Amino acid sequence: MTQPLPHFLSPTSLSLDATQELFERALELKKRPIRTDLAGQSAGLVFFNPSLRTRTSMDISMYQLGGHAVTLDVGVGTWKLEHREGRVMDGDAAEHVKEAAKVLSRYVQALGIRSFPERRSWGEDRMDPILSAFAKWADVPIINLESSLYHPCQSLADLLTIQERIGSPKGQPIVISWAYHPKALPMAVPNSILLEAAKFGMEVRLAHPEGWELDADIMSRANQLARGAGGSVTVYNDIEDAMPGARVVYAKSWGSIANYQHPDEETRLKAALRGTWRISMRHMEATDNGFFMHCLPVRRNVVVDDEVLDSDRNACYDEAENRLHVQKALLLRLLGT
Amino acid sequence: MTQPLPHFLSPTSLSLDATQELFERALELKKRPIRTDLAGQSAGLVFFNPSLRTRTSMDISMYQLGGHAVTLDVGVGTWKLEHREGRVMDGDAAEHVKEAAKVLSRYVQALGIRSFPERRSWGEDRMDPILSAFAKWADVPIINLESSLYHPCQSLADLLTIQERIGSPKGQPIVISWAYHPKALPMAVPNSILLEAAKFGMEVRLAHPEGWELDADIMSRANQLARGAGGSVTVYNDIEDAMPGARVVYAKSWGSIANYQHPDEETRLKAALRGTWRISMRHMEATDNGFFMHCLPVRRNVVVDDEVLDSDRNACYDEAENRLHVQKALLLRLLGT
Amino acid sequence: MTQPLPHFLSPTSLSLDATQELFERALELKKRPIRTDLAGQSAGLVFFNPSLRTRTSMDISMYQLGGHAVTLDVGVGTWKLEHREGRVMDGDAAEHVKEAAKVLSRYVQALGIRSFPERRSWGEDRMDPILSAFAKWADVPIINLESSLYHPCQSLADLLTIQERIGSPKGQPIVISWAYHPKALPMAVPNSILLEAAKFGMEVRLAHPEGWELDADIMSRANQLARGAGGSVTVYNDIEDAMPGARVVYAKSWGSIANYQHPDEETRLKAALRGTWRISMRHMEATDNGFFMHCLPVRRNVVVDDEVLDSDRNACYDEAENRLHVQKALLLRLLGT
Repeated sequence: MTQPLPHFLSPTSLSLDATQELFERALELKKRPIRTDLAGQSAGLVFFNPSLRTRTSMDISMYQLGGHAVTLDVGVGTWKLEHREGRVMDGDAAEHVKEAAKVLSRYVQALGIRSFPERRSWGEDRMDPILSAFAKWADVPIINLESSLYHPCQSLADLLTIQERIGSPKGQPIVISWAYHPKALPMAVPNSILLEAAKFGMEVRLAHPEGWELDADIMSRANQLARGAGGSVTVYNDIEDAMPGARVVYAKSWGSIANYQHPDEETRLKAALRGTWRISMRHMEATDNGFFMHCLPVRRNVVVDDEVLDSDRNACYDEAENRLHVQKALLLRLLGT
Repeated sequence: MTQPLPHFLSPTSLSLDATQELFERALELKKRPIRTDLAGQSAGLVFFNPSLRTRTSMDISMYQLGGHAVTLDVGVGTWKLEHREGRVMDGDAAEHVKEAAKVLSRYVQALGIRSFPERRSWGEDRMDPILSAFAKWADVPIINLESSLYHPCQSLADLLTIQERIGSPKGQPIVISWAYHPKALPMAVPNSILLEAAKFGMEVRLAHPEGWELDADIMSRANQLARGAGGSVTVYNDIEDAMPGARVVYAKSWGSIANYQHPDEETRLKAALRGTWRISMRHMEATDNGFFMHCLPVRRNVVVDDEVLDSDRNACYDEAENRLHVQKALLLRLLGT
Repeated sequence: MTQPLPHFLSPTSLSLDATQELFERALELKKRPIRTDLAGQSAGLVFFNPSLRTRTSMDISMYQLGGHAVTLDVGVGTWKLEHREGRVMDGDAAEHVKEAAKVLSRYVQALGIRSFPERRSWGEDRMDPILSAFAKWADVPIINLESSLYHPCQSLADLLTIQERIGSPKGQPIVISWAYHPKALPMAVPNSILLEAAKFGMEVRLAHPEGWELDADIMSRANQLARGAGGSVTVYNDIEDAMPGARVVYAKSWGSIANYQHPDEETRLKAALRGTWRISMRHMEATDNGFFMHCLPVRRNVVVDDEVLDSDRNACYDEAENRLHVQKALLLRLLGT
């Protein structure tokens, strides 16, 4: 038997120890960013969905390490891909993920994959079908650049940002708050920050309206991680109750699993929440000098007020910058010698 | 107070002296193109609109200097961007320019921006809203890769080409001529060559039909620059009158400000000009051995005859090549040590 | 007179000797992939159509040789191009191939072009209009990345793969088989493997249903090449008859020239062929331990069964990998010193 590939698919792909070690390397890279470790090596970045931060930071991550990235937009300049096995491929997709994964593995030393949920069914999306297909068939390490379920490069950057600002995250209270948004967004970011914060033993306060519960398995995994690390996960259905004493307010909108196939019903229910679930300076002032985090892109004055983003409580730019440093540390871990 | 960033936004972002110095460097780079000055540095190239020359030449500019470029097509593979402040972002745009500019500034050492006018209102477009938003919020130098108002990398290449062909541009007659075109095109190129030629003290003959006047502020700035440099700007409404004795014929179509919101009226008025305002060999022969310039892309046999483009009066390919050399000199000025 | 440029446009752009020499270099590069021969050199990759393997492998080819590639998607982020001479360009195309070719030649040291047939008329498509226009006007070598007529980088990789598996291809039987496919696909790949296999003196068995004949000129050129190299070309209209004793089964669907302008009629005729012209393990077992080849992308269970692709008879991944090695050898031939 060959060893399984060290794919990086979710926040639990790295143990707490491995993550802390990775942060040390990321902080070294922040000080001395230009390296030659990956000279001659290439990463393929496969995007099924749009990206600004991820595509730019991954490309520059490879460059600053002496390597090279090739960015592929699936369906724009490339073929559409089928991921299901055993299909008679007489529809739209001209190529199967199996071939794409096996062929790209001959050209590159690592593959980054971005693939959002298709939103046809949560039962399907929670299997992370595209990412899983690449992970199954690729012969090189896969890096999840945001799938249906997880955005683990983001949650690495998130925790590094928290650690830089308040020291050890262990035991520190973080609010992960749902926010109003005109669209039903993926759950990859809340799932990931939830698991990552739990892994680090933070006091996690997950705030969302009733009806916007995260996946039950993710919740149970988060609880388990929290217990193991001496932290906790508590759900709040009132945003105001979650704020007092928090050190971090992490806002993110996501769609409702309960109404996954009923977008009109979700829109109807959501309308009443628009005023309440939007982060304002009043929320921030209820915290213990807390700072504001968001993975970006963020809709100003919908998810969060200008006043918060334009204040020095905004940690989003540091958080985005840390994407670069943690990804470089990750690439060195996967590809370095 | 910190120093303002050395953004390169318009032909007046560089003084005549600074431009001449930049040309000397560009000519050195033309002889010895491969350098390592920018090793480890990256530029982000943000395109809101299509590009062939600019995207290729900027990418290669960075590579030949030892650096790296990341090209982003806004709305194709990235998010749509809002540039107005204080908006409730519940429309199409998922991200604000402020976040995009601040985040990209953490990843790259310079940002190139291409953003054509939206053509909803000249009053809005003449503020160069997208470029100005990036210039306001970015923490790294911005390079204008063609905005509503200016295409200053182009006008640098233009003047270098003129200088290579006829020596000092000062006092030399140049015709900048409107041409017929099926579409109402932006004014960035005519504005830029007008200001750049005036800055160099050329005898500028701006030829266009009545109703296709350039912006009054730009005209007044051009006149002021010309006076300061010992040159002149004269408007001709008859293309034939402008040609005698000219050393350069610079053709470019642009839309009418007068009919900015009435495209059908402009189309109606323009139909009668189709025969007259198209550069032919007859025009070229009226000049003093003048050569033909155009920023490209150019519509053959609409803006200019095959006969002119396929003759040795065509300086367009040298002009396009000089984009590479002036941009490299500019990048060294902005990022070199 | 200047020397004609060493464009690489078709399988006959390289003699058998030159191809064999290129294979030796490719095999050396397979062992020691990272080089610096092309430091400072750039290739422009112009895609009029989608690509996964070609765009990735060409980009990485340049990188691994120390050089740089710029990928341009025509009509996505760049201007549409006109290729016909003497046209009044008042339609969709904003730029002529002449200008694009001449300008890009100032920026890059080689140009790769992908341009599929437009399928308006075979008479036009068989002239390879876009590729020919670039080859006519470019001042740097052109590499065909798949045109209407040829995909010669693919057929180089194909023959190298055959040589690696069975030694000298001379005299060895290869089945090039049409396959059912929902779309009327281009003929570039069958044309190229046909000519390349003939050039190497293989015993070529071209299998297709009546009505799917390849272009008569290509057939006659293949016969001539085969005679010169001691091989043969035989057409089979029954797929079963072609298999016995074959060492290679090369499957590829293509459209019918006879029904080039009657897609509905082609679809009607094709329906009856769906079951018969699909490669199954039964076909493979009739061969002399033959292996399966396809240029990819391939539609599973339409062109070929899962059972074949998932067996060790599948040589497609090696074939795709060899794209990288032969392209690097080709680039060194064109640009190396």
